[in-house]
Amino acid sequence: MFNRNERNLKLTIAYQGTRYHGFQRQNNALAIQQVLEEQLALLFKHPLSISGSGRTDTGVHAYGQVINFLTTSSIPVERIPQAARSVLPDDIVVQAAEEAPSDFHARRSAVSKKYIYKILRRPVADPFLRDFVWRIDRPLDVALMREAAQHVIGTHDFSAFRASGGAPVDPVRTIYAVDIAEQGDLVECLFWGNGFLYHMVRNLIGTLADVGLGRTSPAEFAAILASRDRRQAGLTAPPQGLYLKEVLY
Amino acid sequence: MFNRNERNLKLTIAYQGTRYHGFQRQNNALAIQQVLEEQLALLFKHPLSISGSGRTDTGVHAYGQVINFLTTSSIPVERIPQAARSVLPDDIVVQAAEEAPSDFHARRSAVSKKYIYKILRRPVADPFLRDFVWRIDRPLDVALMREAAQHVIGTHDFSAFRASGGAPVDPVRTIYAVDIAEQGDLVECLFWGNGFLYHMVRNLIGTLADVGLGRTSPAEFAAILASRDRRQAGLTAPPQGLYLKEVLY
Repeated sequence: MFNRNERNLKLTIAYQGTRYHGFQRQNNALAIQQVLEEQLALLFKHPLSISGSGRTDTGVHAYGQVINFLTTSSIPVERIPQAARSVLPDDIVVQAAEEAPSDFHARRSAVSKKYIYKILRRPVADPFLRDFVWRIDRPLDVALMREAAQHVIGTHDFSAFRASGGAPVDPVRTIYAVDIAEQGDLVECLFWGNGFLYHMVRNLIGTLADVGLGRTSPAEFAAILASRDRRQAGLTAPPQGLYLKEVLY
Repeated sequence: MFNRNERNLKLTIAYQGTRYHGFQRQNNALAIQQVLEEQLALLFKHPLSISGSGRTDTGVHAYGQVINFLTTSSIPVERIPQAARSVLPDDIVVQAAEEAPSDFHARRSAVSKKYIYKILRRPVADPFLRDFVWRIDRPLDVALMREAAQHVIGTHDFSAFRASGGAPVDPVRTIYAVDIAEQGDLVECLFWGNGFLYHMVRNLIGTLADVGLGRTSPAEFAAILASRDRRQAGLTAPPQGLYLKEVLY
């Protein structure tokens, strides 16, 4: 039923995923979507159902997850980030809020996404970074990783890097850019693409780490991608290094 | 009983204090000392009793807590940091190990300590830093804080900044240096002194924050210190911004 007072709100959310069983609402475990729906309902003073741009797994973080929902509340959008602080836990933060066109949908309207994966090259563990990076205690040849990563740019069938046993979806995605930056012993890998299969970034990173460790050559990496065979690729990198950086519309 | 094979080991430990009820062993809550004693006992293959340089509270962190204990194990000291990884949780890390003279004691031999307190000046919360800084959402005048902090350098009765209800100990301490550094919206306050009363750094920071916020002038800060009256000073800053940086011997 059309409600002339109903607004479609688009919120950009940052969260630390450590304490949650992923973004998507679960039956028996606390997910970020549930926290947002329950707590924002207190602020907006009515039950609400939010759509997110996509799932993130347990332990995966977001700088810029995007959600949308309909509300009859007249709370001004510029007040929402501050007001949300009073109802949300400290590890889920509303960074921005705006009114979106009525046909905007956080997942269906998304045109592309950026993910970052953080690797810490350090022989000794850092007790402050355990939830935020994948630590690798051996030297990584980042130049070789960059060479291999160039092969993923463009439109490819990414079956070699999709989660085994996932739902049958079209495995073709387009990657616009990959950037691997070094800052001291931190290696940040940025992936920008029109979409990502389940576990795709973590599987790409697992195999790129094999390249950095000298186990797999850049040419072998290209052959793994071309094989479309998950069994050829490396292990899935752990979740805590992964960040949903931005969703573009 | 003298044991000619017994070594006195000095270990430098870093930890994230978030998950623990402080450093010192408790009856009904998990403390870092208990984890170290139980887990290092597995490595050294005998029960052991460790001494720490001092307590840290729940949520307080350490870059360089120092402990010592006696062991009959012949494990080479250079192997201890890596071997400890296999028994300790990720948020407690042995950074260094060395053999100390038999009369070395982590607390009694300590000559001075350095603490750092981290304040984040940011209007919007950061979900990744909630366990690591005290976030203040209003502007802080760091120059005024520096001016006030100069008053704590030297030998003073710090009764105004000790925890109320603490055990009656000599409240006189000597502060060798205070340094307040800015890096973007992060303010790091370093305190180096021959000893610190319980909650002393957090109480100093609470009152220095009042100075930065313009509630208390640097001259009033000096008067609060001179008053030796806890009721004159500001609130206790929260624990998660505090780091035991170094213990000097």
